[in-house]
Amino acid sequence: MNENMERISRLREKMQEAEIDMYLVPTADFHQSEYVGDYFKVRKWLSGFSGSAGTLVVTMDSAYLWTDGRYFIQAVKELEGTGVTLMKMREEGVPTIDEFLEENLKENSCLACDGRTISAEQGKAWKVMMDRKNGRFFCKEDLADSIWEDRPSMSREPVYLVDVKYVGKAREEKIAMVREAMKDSKTDVHILSSIDDIAWLLNIRGNDIVYNPVVLSYVIVKETEVLFYVQEEAISEEIRAELEKAGVVLKPYFSIYDDVKELGTDSRILLDEKVVNYTLFENLPEGAVTVNAMNPTKPAKAMKNPVEMENERIAHRKDAKAMCRFIYWLKHNVASGEITEYSAAEKSLKFRKEDPDCLDLSFATICAYGPNAAMCHYSPTKEDCAKVEPKGFFLIDSGGQYWQGTTDITRTIAVGPLSQEEKEHFTLVLKGNIRLAMAKFPYGVGGAHLDVLARGPLWEHGLDFNHGTGHGVGYLLNVHEGPQNINWNSGIRPGGYVPMEEGVLISDEPGLYLEGKYGIRCENLLMCRKAEKNAYGQFMEFETVTLVPFDREAILPELLGDAEREWLNQYHKQVYDTIGPLLEGAEREWLKEATKELYLNQ
Amino acid sequence: MNENMERISRLREKMQEAEIDMYLVPTADFHQSEYVGDYFKVRKWLSGFSGSAGTLVVTMDSAYLWTDGRYFIQAVKELEGTGVTLMKMREEGVPTIDEFLEENLKENSCLACDGRTISAEQGKAWKVMMDRKNGRFFCKEDLADSIWEDRPSMSREPVYLVDVKYVGKAREEKIAMVREAMKDSKTDVHILSSIDDIAWLLNIRGNDIVYNPVVLSYVIVKETEVLFYVQEEAISEEIRAELEKAGVVLKPYFSIYDDVKELGTDSRILLDEKVVNYTLFENLPEGAVTVNAMNPTKPAKAMKNPVEMENERIAHRKDAKAMCRFIYWLKHNVASGEITEYSAAEKSLKFRKEDPDCLDLSFATICAYGPNAAMCHYSPTKEDCAKVEPKGFFLIDSGGQYWQGTTDITRTIAVGPLSQEEKEHFTLVLKGNIRLAMAKFPYGVGGAHLDVLARGPLWEHGLDFNHGTGHGVGYLLNVHEGPQNINWNSGIRPGGYVPMEEGVLISDEPGLYLEGKYGIRCENLLMCRKAEKNAYGQFMEFETVTLVPFDREAILPELLGDAEREWLNQYHKQVYDTIGPLLEGAEREWLKEATKELYLNQ
Repeated sequence: MNENMERISRLREKMQEAEIDMYLVPTADFHQSEYVGDYFKVRKWLSGFSGSAGTLVVTMDSAYLWTDGRYFIQAVKELEGTGVTLMKMREEGVPTIDEFLEENLKENSCLACDGRTISAEQGKAWKVMMDRKNGRFFCKEDLADSIWEDRPSMSREPVYLVDVKYVGKAREEKIAMVREAMKDSKTDVHILSSIDDIAWLLNIRGNDIVYNPVVLSYVIVKETEVLFYVQEEAISEEIRAELEKAGVVLKPYFSIYDDVKELGTDSRILLDEKVVNYTLFENLPEGAVTVNAMNPTKPAKAMKNPVEMENERIAHRKDAKAMCRFIYWLKHNVASGEITEYSAAEKSLKFRKEDPDCLDLSFATICAYGPNAAMCHYSPTKEDCAKVEPKGFFLIDSGGQYWQGTTDITRTIAVGPLSQEEKEHFTLVLKGNIRLAMAKFPYGVGGAHLDVLARGPLWEHGLDFNHGTGHGVGYLLNVHEGPQNINWNSGIRPGGYVPMEEGVLISDEPGLYLEGKYGIRCENLLMCRKAEKNAYGQFMEFETVTLVPFDREAILPELLGDAEREWLNQYHKQVYDTIGPLLEGAEREWLKEATKELYLNQ
Repeated sequence: MNENMERISRLREKMQEAEIDMYLVPTADFHQSEYVGDYFKVRKWLSGFSGSAGTLVVTMDSAYLWTDGRYFIQAVKELEGTGVTLMKMREEGVPTIDEFLEENLKENSCLACDGRTISAEQGKAWKVMMDRKNGRFFCKEDLADSIWEDRPSMSREPVYLVDVKYVGKAREEKIAMVREAMKDSKTDVHILSSIDDIAWLLNIRGNDIVYNPVVLSYVIVKETEVLFYVQEEAISEEIRAELEKAGVVLKPYFSIYDDVKELGTDSRILLDEKVVNYTLFENLPEGAVTVNAMNPTKPAKAMKNPVEMENERIAHRKDAKAMCRFIYWLKHNVASGEITEYSAAEKSLKFRKEDPDCLDLSFATICAYGPNAAMCHYSPTKEDCAKVEPKGFFLIDSGGQYWQGTTDITRTIAVGPLSQEEKEHFTLVLKGNIRLAMAKFPYGVGGAHLDVLARGPLWEHGLDFNHGTGHGVGYLLNVHEGPQNINWNSGIRPGGYVPMEEGVLISDEPGLYLEGKYGIRCENLLMCRKAEKNAYGQFMEFETVTLVPFDREAILPELLGDAEREWLNQYHKQVYDTIGPLLEGAEREWLKEATKELYLNQ
């Protein structure tokens, strides 16, 4: 019997004992983090599916896994033999999880999950559904805990501080800003459970989620004190003292669940029901009023201040140096026949790590050769990876965590001869990247409005890609952060629309993926800044902070418009002027060639 | 004393008698129509402001008029000496009407208006506000009626029928569709008060609003009968008989207000609270449940069926012939020095009316020369209009009502030498027009997403325009119809986002307006149709149905991209191939010249 099948069958025994008809396992820790520590990987342990997003639903006789387009190919592979049925999200005819629950949960039945792993908003909706069905919504227990014998312990990596010279604002200043927002919303308590917001607020970092320098913790901000719920072992005496100076009181991590029960019944509590978990929400005292709104830290964190903006430029120069050296190395060594996707990823890590300010990667490096690049979030392992041959495309999507900020870049590199189709497709993707980078627009416009610029050149040819065009990027923090994004399809949902603000760092990464053939993605990070203000309003524009050449060998200049070609030449000039001096000898010579002007008829 | 000042002071006497503190007059008939008949022009009669949109608020000592950017210049002129303060909507520091009411209505005060002229949604909100203030919201009376002695009577123009050969679907079929939608929403009554929807549903037309071929009426659809509330005098015996064949029962226009009181208290009523008026809504019996949703006729009306699509092409050929003849005439007669904005408008009407299928204009022709064109909705009169001189730009925005559909076109025409700046600005506006026309996109994308295509070329230069880029157009109906539009700023509001659907007829009309200098607008109508369906989804594209050349004399070819220039040349070729054969002699020769290919270096 397949290992996952067996685990699920043991879960069913537990379900039977507790009279549960359906058990649901999302991908989440207690903080609604996008990526989670090993302790929280219940869904993966049960189903075998290792993607970063997915929800497992187990009934007494079946099991289903919902995931999105990024992971369809991978999920098919990993779910083989587990008995788990793949539910391809947003495909025609595939029900949403909610539709499935509505349809399959009978009158008087019981739906269960660990209430700490779902949002208050989600939990409230399922409670209403189960009430309607005269059933139960049971969420007091992590059913998998008792059957997962060798479950990893919860991460408690040491917490460290980031200096104001890096992040521009003292924690006292940030706490005061939160208190202002509390005043504006007429609340006296703020419960903050998203750990990237907490890291930003307290100017701390940690290592509790791989590549995300965050600390498992909760915060309660009151009018005169800040309670910081964190695992004691993670905090040194020096750091405790430093935090206490700013009025931050340390409390045991799990004690928040009892503490919130003791909040005054006349409290007015500011919290984001999309983020605070359902169990925490359920524990609030009766009578307390909640004001459901976006955490004030979220937009503030997204809008990098001038110190952070300048540091991000520095981080991107460091990162560009490493990436240029990597591309040079790849192009000059591919002929050896000894490079694999895995060894290439290792090499790129080595180049980054040469800079003492590079603390870590910002996510698992994706190196993908040929058809593997058609899987958007493919991650090679030492044992299972392709050899890079001297033909076609090699894709690398990677980034670093620097004291000066977070980077994220994708380059699709010609490692040998390309077909005309490959060049055409590359140029269309690049064209979209450039059009978005060139955008100027009045304040108020958001990512949902701008997406057509990046996708238009593909749409024109009946092509598209199955992921967002852009995600916000943190400062020495999560490589994915809100509230801004660039995606016509998500940004436009009610409440999902946020204007592009000054200081927002956001990716520009159109792509194209032909299953079984190749994958292309061109990704730079853009920083939004103010342009002129006039009678028509305040205009905004993007500064491209990533400074690495796009592969000239893959570009068909005649497919670019004049303005796009001009932009590219200007960009390449800037790359050489800025990064050239950081390189030496043959690497520098290569960069000069790689950033030469492109002409229409060459 | 100024006439308007005097009228407002008589209104204040009435207010005092009824103990009203604030009286509000929107621009609306009882059907929330965009344009209204003379009977309903209370706001204009009181304030003197004749624009198509605006709300007058009268207090015991002041009066305020809110209107939008289209009308600022005109309102300043017309409000002079009336004592009415202009409130420029969406300008910084100007309160919204709601903010103003909230701020200025005291505890225990009374707000009043004619409840038939505001939507149920609006009325409900103001009722809540006045309850909070322990005040009154009085809306049972049209206070202006008793002081407006020579008030025009309500229009009751004859109703006529449109044949299925024009509109493609019989009224029985349309009524059945509405009943299906009622079933889907679990309702047994549908109250329909928007008169363009009623005209569409019953395949009738009328003439109760100038340029809008609609009939003042209400409809109640029940499971077995359709009640049609209409002024008796407007309906001939033949038409009554024809309607009765489809199960439509005629009732006196005003009797709906009593009839809705008699609906069963167990009724479930489908209605759109944004459209049904507040008085009607207030008259519903207690106990009846209302389901607030968009009228099912609205999206159905917007999606022209294949018969309507083919007819619209015919209408646009007829209209193009008239417009081409007009442009030829203008260019060849401007030197005479005898053309005025008014006489030009008359001439364009004459050209349209030569086609026997042209029933009317679709809106008041805007002919504007020089600086007058900077006023977007300027309308010249015989007495007050500029002479057209042989230099600079002449703008004409006009359209016709044909049996085969409604047209709407704007051309900005060089009537003499242009400055380099004029040509640059013209080309930027045209570039936006072309980019939108060329768009291809997956199904689901809406006008809010596409707007950046039309505005981008202007934004790039720190320019913009103060109106929507596109509005839906009816079939032998209102020249403005929803639910689709093209406007990043409006389409994205919650509930305001609607995908672009097959058969939607929509305008593409970017512009640029330099106060005191000139105005430019390039407007074609686009018809949305399906392109290929593949693994990426169902793609959609636009067919440009307006077939009139853009003025080559105003175009700087080097400011257009290759693809844009190619589109324009292809378009001009289509114009000549299609419209050329409808013209003769010198007019045809001129069109040949006007549609010649544009080269980069000519």
